[in-house]
Amino acid sequence: MKSITADPVSWDAFERIFHPRNVAIIGVSARGYTFGTGIMSSLKTIGFEGKIYAVNPKGGEFNGMKIYKSLGELPQPIDFAIIAVPAEHVPKALEECRVMGVTGAEILSAGFSELGTEEGMRLEQEIRDIAAKGIRVVGPNCFGIYCPRSGLTLLPGPDLSRTSGPVGFVSQSGGMSIDFAHIGKWMGIGFSKMISFGNGADLRETELLEYFGEDPETKVIAMYIEGVKDGREFLSVLKDVAAKKPVIINKGGLTEAGGRAVQSHTASMGGTRNIWESVIRQAGAVQVGGLWELAQTCLAFSLLPGRVYENIIVAGGGGALGVEACDAAERYGLGLPMLDPEMTEAILEFLPRPGSSARNPIDAANPFVDPRAYREVFTLAAQDPRIDVQILIQLLHHYKSLSSGMGLESPKEITPYRELAGVISEVAAETGKPLVLVMPDFKQGRESMDIEEVIREARQAFLDKGVPVFDDLNSCLRALGHVSLYYARRRSRERL
Amino acid sequence: MKSITADPVSWDAFERIFHPRNVAIIGVSARGYTFGTGIMSSLKTIGFEGKIYAVNPKGGEFNGMKIYKSLGELPQPIDFAIIAVPAEHVPKALEECRVMGVTGAEILSAGFSELGTEEGMRLEQEIRDIAAKGIRVVGPNCFGIYCPRSGLTLLPGPDLSRTSGPVGFVSQSGGMSIDFAHIGKWMGIGFSKMISFGNGADLRETELLEYFGEDPETKVIAMYIEGVKDGREFLSVLKDVAAKKPVIINKGGLTEAGGRAVQSHTASMGGTRNIWESVIRQAGAVQVGGLWELAQTCLAFSLLPGRVYENIIVAGGGGALGVEACDAAERYGLGLPMLDPEMTEAILEFLPRPGSSARNPIDAANPFVDPRAYREVFTLAAQDPRIDVQILIQLLHHYKSLSSGMGLESPKEITPYRELAGVISEVAAETGKPLVLVMPDFKQGRESMDIEEVIREARQAFLDKGVPVFDDLNSCLRALGHVSLYYARRRSRERL
Repeated sequence: MKSITADPVSWDAFERIFHPRNVAIIGVSARGYTFGTGIMSSLKTIGFEGKIYAVNPKGGEFNGMKIYKSLGELPQPIDFAIIAVPAEHVPKALEECRVMGVTGAEILSAGFSELGTEEGMRLEQEIRDIAAKGIRVVGPNCFGIYCPRSGLTLLPGPDLSRTSGPVGFVSQSGGMSIDFAHIGKWMGIGFSKMISFGNGADLRETELLEYFGEDPETKVIAMYIEGVKDGREFLSVLKDVAAKKPVIINKGGLTEAGGRAVQSHTASMGGTRNIWESVIRQAGAVQVGGLWELAQTCLAFSLLPGRVYENIIVAGGGGALGVEACDAAERYGLGLPMLDPEMTEAILEFLPRPGSSARNPIDAANPFVDPRAYREVFTLAAQDPRIDVQILIQLLHHYKSLSSGMGLESPKEITPYRELAGVISEVAAETGKPLVLVMPDFKQGRESMDIEEVIREARQAFLDKGVPVFDDLNSCLRALGHVSLYYARRRSRERL
Repeated sequence: MKSITADPVSWDAFERIFHPRNVAIIGVSARGYTFGTGIMSSLKTIGFEGKIYAVNPKGGEFNGMKIYKSLGELPQPIDFAIIAVPAEHVPKALEECRVMGVTGAEILSAGFSELGTEEGMRLEQEIRDIAAKGIRVVGPNCFGIYCPRSGLTLLPGPDLSRTSGPVGFVSQSGGMSIDFAHIGKWMGIGFSKMISFGNGADLRETELLEYFGEDPETKVIAMYIEGVKDGREFLSVLKDVAAKKPVIINKGGLTEAGGRAVQSHTASMGGTRNIWESVIRQAGAVQVGGLWELAQTCLAFSLLPGRVYENIIVAGGGGALGVEACDAAERYGLGLPMLDPEMTEAILEFLPRPGSSARNPIDAANPFVDPRAYREVFTLAAQDPRIDVQILIQLLHHYKSLSSGMGLESPKEITPYRELAGVISEVAAETGKPLVLVMPDFKQGRESMDIEEVIREARQAFLDKGVPVFDDLNSCLRALGHVSLYYARRRSRERL
């Protein structure tokens, strides 16, 4: 494989694919829903920045928009084509793109090697052959590309965020791409680009990883991999890229049954768990065990300063939550050093007594601690030189009982999440030690929609201040552990 | 310790404690909020079935209710007392209860051995001494008892469910009790009784476990333990009880830091991870790693038939979800046998093509599969004699895009969750093989409150039909794995 950086033609191709001046959608039907019409309305709704052309050999009109019979009829050359026609017509459509000088195409259609049929294999080989003659191909059997800056979006993605962020996602699965894009929108993960490559007839994991390694917009790389084409090459690129940017890998199909599922899904070979675990560790990348862990880990990598986090403070109202935090911390290689007696006493001055304790974990023994008290507590605790990061566990649902008791209509009026977000972000800035929020949601019944609304508002208020928010302790500490271990390994490699 | 069953006096005491005809709350203040007034309004709001008396040596009136100066002034003998006065006044109040013939008391006040002070230790010893003379004590430093049938509730628990269920919970932590009670309400876990025993001066883990072992209302026993008083005795009772009812244990404080947190929390000794893991396994009980896992596992134990589940079917729209399911299944000792080609073909007849696959996992490759199609698919798949249980992964948020596209106001109108719940429960009844729903929630933004509402309605619709619902695959399979392993171990013990 040619290196991307050494090859300005490849680099330009990527730029044109992610930020096309125009797009031709091949397979828009004059009547009835097709993937082509679906992606067209998605692009219009999300506000794609370029021009959109509909193409179908049958011609016609869709919602007042002309459907061109071929690429040749279009008034201008095309940067990027989206192909959504039945599998047997794909090679012809792709070849037309190539001949017309289209830079890249994504093929949304399924019905190729994932079927395990001879015809599927043959059709996919044809795609590969055409690509080799000079057009870059994403797919087939994929959901395509999502790029918030240009407004390219995934197949069912009219409502994805248009705000760019540091995370690039390379995924063999379309479903996982769209799910991750949705999760990222409210969890606070911004994406630079996302690319679902499906069967990967042309563009695949290794080349895309290399691209994201060079892409200045991408600071954190996430991957969902079912199988790789060339293990040795992948490992070598992974090593290089992971040495400069965190690479977080969710590997699917690590088991016999998983391998079978992978084969039906994207026609890949799974590979065993042990091999994968050691490859990822050797390369200095981060392995996660599923989509939620992937998302939480990307959140931590994108919002926390890149450094080693050895020791933490955990504070909150509730002794058992503190106990759980301690057990989880050890699981993920984090320490909770016991605070000095003087520090403990100083902190206790600001907490309700009796019931509270402050040796670390800090148990405030009360859900209604004033944000100003937490300001004092966290400012004090940050003075301990061993502490790298502080975590606040905050339940919000108690404010509903309080507000009902006060005769108020909604808990929103008295829940001090804005004040708390302010305090947390200010203390982090003043002390240089990040603060993280854990906000469990224990009341998810139909009668608690008002609490849910407050929780969602609160999450956004914290994210607006750059504070990462997690739903539960274990996920928070697991993500933090990943960040810490990644930078510890990178540091020791750099010292060699 | 005397055996509860061999001692009708103890047994009657438990009955009177959980279902008291009346309650005296010692520490209700004529003005200002105290724990005493808090628990009084909770009992009134939840609709406690018996009579409530307020007591405070200062007398007075609260919200038009007379505050008696002492127990002696009350018009009738008292079954159960709730003590919520400052720690130094607790022994006197408890002694008065004992002298007046009160059967049991819960002490909500903190300020005892958990402080690590000499005074705290001494006060707790006084409680122990009084209890030994003939009154059963829950606490101190606890949130008390929750019993849906009688309407006794935890300290901040005015809104807990009044519907009884099969799960009994013995917890050293008050916070974890109230959190679990809230989670249970919407997750579909019904409680027989819940008892938060805090420092456990009198009633503790072993005796309560023995009680739940005998209690006909309790079919599944959940425990949160920080430390036990007598390890040998606990193990012996645990063995006996786990042989007849599932016992699920969340052990907090398995690490050095966790042990320190435990000491500040309930003055217990933690014990090491290895010892605890082997004790729980030896006893044939189930160990879980946190509150959410505890809840999910209780859900599975209470809604699924008690048997070994070796092999599963996983179906849903989305190939990567299927891959994840396979990997998770192996992690928890569950198999996903490949279906016969004839069966695969028969199932594919009912699924959209191309894109779907049906070797197990079954990938419907479409979020809008008609519930009637799933009826056929699951009825067919259940015919495979290897299959013990079937799992459907269903996303609901796609119905919002669909409904917006159709110009509808809410996705509720077109989301076929009632039909699906009907199909799922009917197929389970017809085939004798349970079905479980996994319903991930990927869109939790402020703009998706309507989806959240549909998800909550849908969850209730499935629960109403007895179908357990999980938020994610991994939790579902982990819970299923616990059920299966518990019954497999019990079966092999019974065969010895």
